Amino acid sequence: MKFTKMQGLGNDYVYINGFIEKIGNPAELAVKISDRHFGIGSDGLILINPSSVADFEMEMYNADGSRGEMCGNGIRCVAKYVYDYGLIDKTQISVETLSGIKYLVLTVENQKVVQVRVDMGKPELKPDRIPILAEGETVINVPIEVDGREYKMTGVSMGNPHVVIYMDDIQHLDIERIGPKFENHECFPNRINTEFVKVLDRNTVEMRVWERGSGETLACGTGACAVAVACVLGGLTEEKITVRLLGGDLFIEWDWEKDTVYMTGPAEVVFDGEWKEEKDV
Amino acid sequence: MKFTKMQGLGNDYVYINGFIEKIGNPAELAVKISDRHFGIGSDGLILINPSSVADFEMEMYNADGSRGEMCGNGIRCVAKYVYDYGLIDKTQISVETLSGIKYLVLTVENQKVVQVRVDMGKPELKPDRIPILAEGETVINVPIEVDGREYKMTGVSMGNPHVVIYMDDIQHLDIERIGPKFENHECFPNRINTEFVKVLDRNTVEMRVWERGSGETLACGTGACAVAVACVLGGLTEEKITVRLLGGDLFIEWDWEKDTVYMTGPAEVVFDGEWKEEKDV
Repeated sequence: MKFTKMQGLGNDYVYINGFIEKIGNPAELAVKISDRHFGIGSDGLILINPSSVADFEMEMYNADGSRGEMCGNGIRCVAKYVYDYGLIDKTQISVETLSGIKYLVLTVENQKVVQVRVDMGKPELKPDRIPILAEGETVINVPIEVDGREYKMTGVSMGNPHVVIYMDDIQHLDIERIGPKFENHECFPNRINTEFVKVLDRNTVEMRVWERGSGETLACGTGACAVAVACVLGGLTEEKITVRLLGGDLFIEWDWEKDTVYMTGPAEVVFDGEWKEEKDV
Repeated sequence: MKFTKMQGLGNDYVYINGFIEKIGNPAELAVKISDRHFGIGSDGLILINPSSVADFEMEMYNADGSRGEMCGNGIRCVAKYVYDYGLIDKTQISVETLSGIKYLVLTVENQKVVQVRVDMGKPELKPDRIPILAEGETVINVPIEVDGREYKMTGVSMGNPHVVIYMDDIQHLDIERIGPKFENHECFPNRINTEFVKVLDRNTVEMRVWERGSGETLACGTGACAVAVACVLGGLTEEKITVRLLGGDLFIEWDWEKDTVYMTGPAEVVFDGEWKEEKDV
């Protein structure tokens, strides 16, 4: 079974061409290959399949075998794969996911995709739809007490719930301690992803993210989008900003007219491999 | 650059055929490829080279780029590589390492190596040569107080220092807590690797290992050898035993006549890969 290991901001998946390879039990295979000592080692498995409603289908499995709906870092790699490996020669493509059809624009240099822009959709600000237990039409710089200290939070859903917290210093933040306290705070009925943000200038911010169920991660695409929306709502940045994450940079643009958020970032092939047949599922 | 990812008891390295591939800066490459999100993901890099004193040379680098002397799990994979990939057709081979020349015996089924026996050399029992600060000629079932509790320790060096501690229950052991207290105990001037062992019968033991500098690992070949020696010295097992580790089983034999310890265990190819040229070091 041929595969390609790819990563976007350190979020790494094993990619398989579903036009050629037929996988009997992808959930089981995902568990096996994701193991970082006995398998290939990855955050999960992504099959690139034919689609009847878009150019391709992205069939995604997490490392535990559960089905993944969508992943901003993963879908950029899908775009690079289909272009670099000659499955398509357009630079605007559509990809079917469990979160709907996503539209991508590819930046190509020397016949290789170097950046991909993903339309991440409309930000949702209504508290009951994020959901956050709060008064009013939006949650912008609303006080919240966590672990005996008061913070100001801005709430945004990008299909999943986020709160954005501004700080002067995120480098020395004890995120392992404070992250779970935000995640499980009574204000967030479905728990929450928390972005800790330092604004550097009107076009640049840096962030660390605590993802619900995962802890701190190198990057979170929807989190970076939520941060850009929050920073614009708070008057702290322009509508187009660079977000610096531990895994690398994303360029986020909140397009007011279309009421959608565009995320642009890198996608890289790490290596091509062949999984031994004796180990196939 | 072509490579093969292999593992023995979950201890995984990237293997490169040094007869074909020329690596300018292997220490730098080791750091790059070992990264589990941005690289191939491994415990390190092993180059299989020509040798003027043995059949092959094993040139080993840890994930941090430092030079590794020898690794029991790694050298079994070297043996599988050279046989399965047709570099040699003997089943008894010698491999030059920074810890001297090692002699290996290969078990072959269907033209593939399934098990490899490694001559791990002579166990050292003298306290000052392990080193352990203790009276007498050996350290067998000697009391030691750690974290306010008394244990009985047996000390063995297999080129690196070990103490073996017997317990009725190792499954629920809080090894993250107790491991560092053994590692840094005043009795051990060079720190120590600690094996926590439950004897199941006269031919089988199970163990967990706390490795100095690494913490708990899936497997430790020299640790399993030290356990077999300790169990024989304590009259608990025969000279040939199966040691069950988290990563899998090793078969250990202490040969009295030759005063050497043989370790037999598996070696597996996980996948073959090609690292992109643009990323070569």
